Amino acid sequence: MTYKDPRKPIAERVEHLLGLMNLEEKVGQLIQPFGWKTYEVNEGQITLTDSFKEQVKNGGVGSLYGTLRADPWTGVTLETGLSPREGAEAVNHIQRYAVEQSRLGIPILIGEECSHGHMAIGGTVFPVPLSIGSTWNVDLYRDMCRAVALETRSQGGAVTYSPVLDVVRDPRWGRTEECFGEDPYLISEYAVASVEGLQGESLDSPSSVAATLKHFVGYGSSEGGRNAGPVHMGTRELMEVDMLPFKKAVEAGAASIMPAYNEIDGVPCTVNTELLDGILRKEWGFDGMVITDCGAIDMLASGHDTAEDGMDAAVQAIRAGIDMEMSGEMFGKHLLKAVESNKLEVSVLDEAVRRVLTLKFKLGLFENPYVDPQAAENVIGSEQHVGLARQLAAEGIVLLKNEAKALPLSKEGGVIAVIGPNADQGYNQLGDYTSPQPSAAVTTVLGGIRAKLGEEAERVLYAPGCRIKDDSREGFEFALACAEQADTVVMVLGGSSARDFGEGTIDLRTGASKVTDDALSDMDCGEGIDRMTLQLSGVQLELAQEIHKLGKRMIVVYINGRPIAEPWIDEHADAILEAWYPGQEGGHAVADILFGDVNPSGKLTMSIPKHVGQLPVYYNGKRSRGKRYLEEDSQPRYPFGYGLSYTEFSYSDIQMTPEVIGTDGTAVVSVNVTNSGDCEGSEVVQLYVSDAASKYTRPARELKGFQKISLQPGERRKVEFTIGPEQLQYIGQDYRQVVEPGLFRVMLGRHVNDTLSADLTVQED
Amino acid sequence: MTYKDPRKPIAERVEHLLGLMNLEEKVGQLIQPFGWKTYEVNEGQITLTDSFKEQVKNGGVGSLYGTLRADPWTGVTLETGLSPREGAEAVNHIQRYAVEQSRLGIPILIGEECSHGHMAIGGTVFPVPLSIGSTWNVDLYRDMCRAVALETRSQGGAVTYSPVLDVVRDPRWGRTEECFGEDPYLISEYAVASVEGLQGESLDSPSSVAATLKHFVGYGSSEGGRNAGPVHMGTRELMEVDMLPFKKAVEAGAASIMPAYNEIDGVPCTVNTELLDGILRKEWGFDGMVITDCGAIDMLASGHDTAEDGMDAAVQAIRAGIDMEMSGEMFGKHLLKAVESNKLEVSVLDEAVRRVLTLKFKLGLFENPYVDPQAAENVIGSEQHVGLARQLAAEGIVLLKNEAKALPLSKEGGVIAVIGPNADQGYNQLGDYTSPQPSAAVTTVLGGIRAKLGEEAERVLYAPGCRIKDDSREGFEFALACAEQADTVVMVLGGSSARDFGEGTIDLRTGASKVTDDALSDMDCGEGIDRMTLQLSGVQLELAQEIHKLGKRMIVVYINGRPIAEPWIDEHADAILEAWYPGQEGGHAVADILFGDVNPSGKLTMSIPKHVGQLPVYYNGKRSRGKRYLEEDSQPRYPFGYGLSYTEFSYSDIQMTPEVIGTDGTAVVSVNVTNSGDCEGSEVVQLYVSDAASKYTRPARELKGFQKISLQPGERRKVEFTIGPEQLQYIGQDYRQVVEPGLFRVMLGRHVNDTLSADLTVQED
Repeated sequence: MTYKDPRKPIAERVEHLLGLMNLEEKVGQLIQPFGWKTYEVNEGQITLTDSFKEQVKNGGVGSLYGTLRADPWTGVTLETGLSPREGAEAVNHIQRYAVEQSRLGIPILIGEECSHGHMAIGGTVFPVPLSIGSTWNVDLYRDMCRAVALETRSQGGAVTYSPVLDVVRDPRWGRTEECFGEDPYLISEYAVASVEGLQGESLDSPSSVAATLKHFVGYGSSEGGRNAGPVHMGTRELMEVDMLPFKKAVEAGAASIMPAYNEIDGVPCTVNTELLDGILRKEWGFDGMVITDCGAIDMLASGHDTAEDGMDAAVQAIRAGIDMEMSGEMFGKHLLKAVESNKLEVSVLDEAVRRVLTLKFKLGLFENPYVDPQAAENVIGSEQHVGLARQLAAEGIVLLKNEAKALPLSKEGGVIAVIGPNADQGYNQLGDYTSPQPSAAVTTVLGGIRAKLGEEAERVLYAPGCRIKDDSREGFEFALACAEQADTVVMVLGGSSARDFGEGTIDLRTGASKVTDDALSDMDCGEGIDRMTLQLSGVQLELAQEIHKLGKRMIVVYINGRPIAEPWIDEHADAILEAWYPGQEGGHAVADILFGDVNPSGKLTMSIPKHVGQLPVYYNGKRSRGKRYLEEDSQPRYPFGYGLSYTEFSYSDIQMTPEVIGTDGTAVVSVNVTNSGDCEGSEVVQLYVSDAASKYTRPARELKGFQKISLQPGERRKVEFTIGPEQLQYIGQDYRQVVEPGLFRVMLGRHVNDTLSADLTVQED
Repeated sequence: MTYKDPRKPIAERVEHLLGLMNLEEKVGQLIQPFGWKTYEVNEGQITLTDSFKEQVKNGGVGSLYGTLRADPWTGVTLETGLSPREGAEAVNHIQRYAVEQSRLGIPILIGEECSHGHMAIGGTVFPVPLSIGSTWNVDLYRDMCRAVALETRSQGGAVTYSPVLDVVRDPRWGRTEECFGEDPYLISEYAVASVEGLQGESLDSPSSVAATLKHFVGYGSSEGGRNAGPVHMGTRELMEVDMLPFKKAVEAGAASIMPAYNEIDGVPCTVNTELLDGILRKEWGFDGMVITDCGAIDMLASGHDTAEDGMDAAVQAIRAGIDMEMSGEMFGKHLLKAVESNKLEVSVLDEAVRRVLTLKFKLGLFENPYVDPQAAENVIGSEQHVGLARQLAAEGIVLLKNEAKALPLSKEGGVIAVIGPNADQGYNQLGDYTSPQPSAAVTTVLGGIRAKLGEEAERVLYAPGCRIKDDSREGFEFALACAEQADTVVMVLGGSSARDFGEGTIDLRTGASKVTDDALSDMDCGEGIDRMTLQLSGVQLELAQEIHKLGKRMIVVYINGRPIAEPWIDEHADAILEAWYPGQEGGHAVADILFGDVNPSGKLTMSIPKHVGQLPVYYNGKRSRGKRYLEEDSQPRYPFGYGLSYTEFSYSDIQMTPEVIGTDGTAVVSVNVTNSGDCEGSEVVQLYVSDAASKYTRPARELKGFQKISLQPGERRKVEFTIGPEQLQYIGQDYRQVVEPGLFRVMLGRHVNDTLSADLTVQED
């Protein structure tokens, strides 16, 4: 059998297999039922459901979505969910049935959410991408992706629905946390690292998963920051900004991509032929598979209303280049009917099936459909992965303010009151797209501080103070009483993207947690939770204001998924740490920073506005964008690239060599960076380029490079960047990349608004 | 001399004249110095400046900008400015010099701002376009345009830089007041009326001026509502929304157009060849002249940075289709040098000169360069024009709330306290782009109420309470004391677009006005004054809250230039009138409404949001735009088309005949509208269309017709609309207008969210 022969070329195996398949088997390959519905667990025994078995026998199942996903949506809880070993066994069970009981023995493509850790019980929960972005440490992220791939594949997951490469232009959007930030260059660097990390050397390795780039494209610029809303954008900006990370990731070999829900100028991405066929496949040469977002095909007939009905939607989608419907089965049913009623040629169907099968062959699923449960138990949540999560979380924390060196705190003496709704609610620091984790696996800020102080942990007081979202002030009294006894108050405020996991509620008057089923969700962020303001939810600000009246040193730690615009905090806190959702090790990471064991090095990848009414505030806008409002200038409170350290870095001697180059030439720009403070620290040296004049307008400044370096006190390093076509070109005439001759200003510095600059002249060759 | 012979065809005259001109004379025709700088007034005597005379002799002056404009920018005040008669004489003086002293005797094109009245002392100040939009009375607006043209031309003004046809999508924008609203169809109706009204039957009539459509295009969708900021928009939306009013006005014969400052997707409109040549001239057949916005050419080299320097900018601009630089002279100087240094062909220059000369011939300036000062005195500010201003203002007032029939007020008995910073500050109700007017010519709300009550005017108390913008509460006490004595409090709040006219300041503790030179500007709206919030400025809300505590009936009147989002007022006021900037007769108009002499019939042409963080909230978005934020839904507080009446209108019996048509067929939809209340009133019956499914996404609802009707109590009228291609088509495949077969829902009702509906099926022919 050619298709089962690993020595044959994949293309040949695919054609052979395709030739053997009937219509039902073909459409079967294009569907993706919910994985968690394929089995039941009874006293540790896994039983496949009858409907799944029937489906396998009647044409088969191309893929499964979220086989080990646990969350309120799936209804799988910590109690009812599977351990890492059981999970691997369950997937083997499912896979075995497909391989052995379907006519042609085609293995199932197990698709999982793994944006910042495999979304399964036990999987290491890394910080959210917004935090990862803030690390500016792409190598570390690549290591994380290796770890995530290893954990995921050890349980049979072969494709992940990440990375999220959306360029966020509106922090009202609830999915801001899932993105690396607002800059296309920075995201592109992470995009390439994610493909390298997730897919490894070869997709058929037991430590690799296929990456799915999403959401293609423009999804981070939806109208009003409302999820999946229409995108108003011209072609040039789309190419220059939103498409760039996708292009880079495709060049890096990404195996899969997901069109966005949104429309752009009247065309839903799901059926955008120009985008999916013209640009993605033809221009960029992408040869992987294209999978819709969940429900995106339905949305064509009911939402976008560009299709008459479900069948019309399915036919439009496959014609535009869609190969599979995510977490859905109607696509297959509609396509079957469409072929039967002569509304769709089999050849179009075949093309999609070919792509799905090709990916399965590339993943080695035909050769190795099963995993080793013992390996799963060994690698999932391993010490190494947990350490990586802690390092990422620490590097992702941004020190926004540090008045009079309020930080770091001393480990010796003094009472610390840790107060706030995010001080000890572990699930609030995990971010969206995480499954619940055993509380022992998650370290909160309170836990991290107590662990740091070890035997002196009794110096640490705790009060929740209030919830994230509701208006109850019944915890204020207890919180004030705690703060009154303290020398330093660490206020842990922010948001939550935790869907109601049933972990319980909390007694605001004592801080004691109670596990109940009717827990009040504190969710004010995450997918579908867009905000109209950027202030702290509920009575958190009021809590901070009340406590501030006590006159104690106040350190604010934000744990949240989008920029917070809260001027009072900016003005009154002694120090502010933005920790984003730092993942399961977040408490240790925050404590490492608070007490100076780690010197903060995180830098913002999103401009933090002063007020929601200033939006948009992303740094790389056009020069003509306007400088102020009546009430306030149009500048953010904290600019792109900003973040303080416990030491000082000074920049000097910027040099450009040569100062004149041809359009395909290169120059080297260098700057001396000195650690002029008194402790070791890491600095992100940022390179920005500004074109003095261009045929089409360009942003005032654009990030075109960065290096994260570590320096001992007093140490000086010369940091060099090469400037060439990659840094100078833009989308010019006829939408082609071009380096236009003329003057460029090249800037090196610590954030977008604090740089040294040197000129570079590009001459016509 | 052929060119002086009115019997020759204009084209022939133009070619002849062009053939006689030297290079200096050609570029001279493309410049537009400031008109107010061409002369000086000494004891009633007008003297032309030497520099103007020299300019006329050295190549000439094609056009003058703002010859009679008085405002802080020109430095011309009520005291130093000219009366209508003097103005006409001054313009004759200028014109005579040009005609008699230049080599070829080419008359000057006098260009003026006349958006809602000729911007000259004495000119009737009509309500701002946002108010005019709210009247939904296009015929009345056409009458107004006739009046404005008559007043302007009587003083020699031959071209106006209006109408403003921008579709406003962001009320943060300070120029919101200058626009008719957020709907392209409604704006198109006004666009056509403006061309008909301003230009009349023939441009060479003494009652006609050439209309300049502006700002072409997208200017109402600038990023963040910041003036002239970049526009992010795709081609389809641009054609469907922002271009529509311009297209209609071009079809109606508009003689002139002005490109917008903004860029769209990287291309500044000023040099957008595709737009100015491809679409405007070639596709639409526009044969008039194209004039930049003020400073727009400079902005290319310094702002957009798409030009290396001023000459490069000028050359790019003329090549793209620009004929004249507004209020500038550098264009001509640069072009001269460009031709001399072989960077520009004379043929390109000639084309621009040809268009300028053509307009002058069409305007009859060669035959009739002078005006009759007596006629100017007669028509400017005539009783008829003032009456028209009052009617427009009254019809433009929108009754937003009327709890328990708080309005109309009785004229009999009871003390009325008129309180607030806009109660008696006439200049605050004129809006931007107005010259100062003698205070006797402007009726404030206080003045209107006092006039209404005649002999009983002593029942009216007045206190300013506070300023628009500053934080002083020193007027609260006096205001509270006034309110305490009253039965009804009329709070006149809002904004101001009055640049500092030096009319003086006001004593907040007594309400007495004092004329001083150091008046504090209250400007919180107008060009260049964009807002970060949509709340009332200063301490106005606080004043209302303090007064509300007295428990009096509280009527709020807003006088302002953009939607106000002030939930407390919405909840606590007994009645709310949105009067926008109602012009010089605003106070009478408000009083007419307050006391029921006029039944309110204004309807919103902009959705009023609940919070700035909801933006954008325009009604005609796509269905996929998202329904809510965490804090609030995404719906406006008051929807598009909304406005209450003192009577009630009921809708019934919607009927569609036939129910099935071909793609070029028509149907008639009708509805019965009954005045079921107890007084006469006018209702705006609104027609909306919704396409069930379309190849490209379409707005959920689109206004496609409206009729303003007046009904006696108990009267019923059957209102009919014809539905055909004009109402059903959209920009479909290949950016062509198309009627796609399928189901349409047609809605008739009182505002966008309160309609009856009937189905219409369009079949393939």
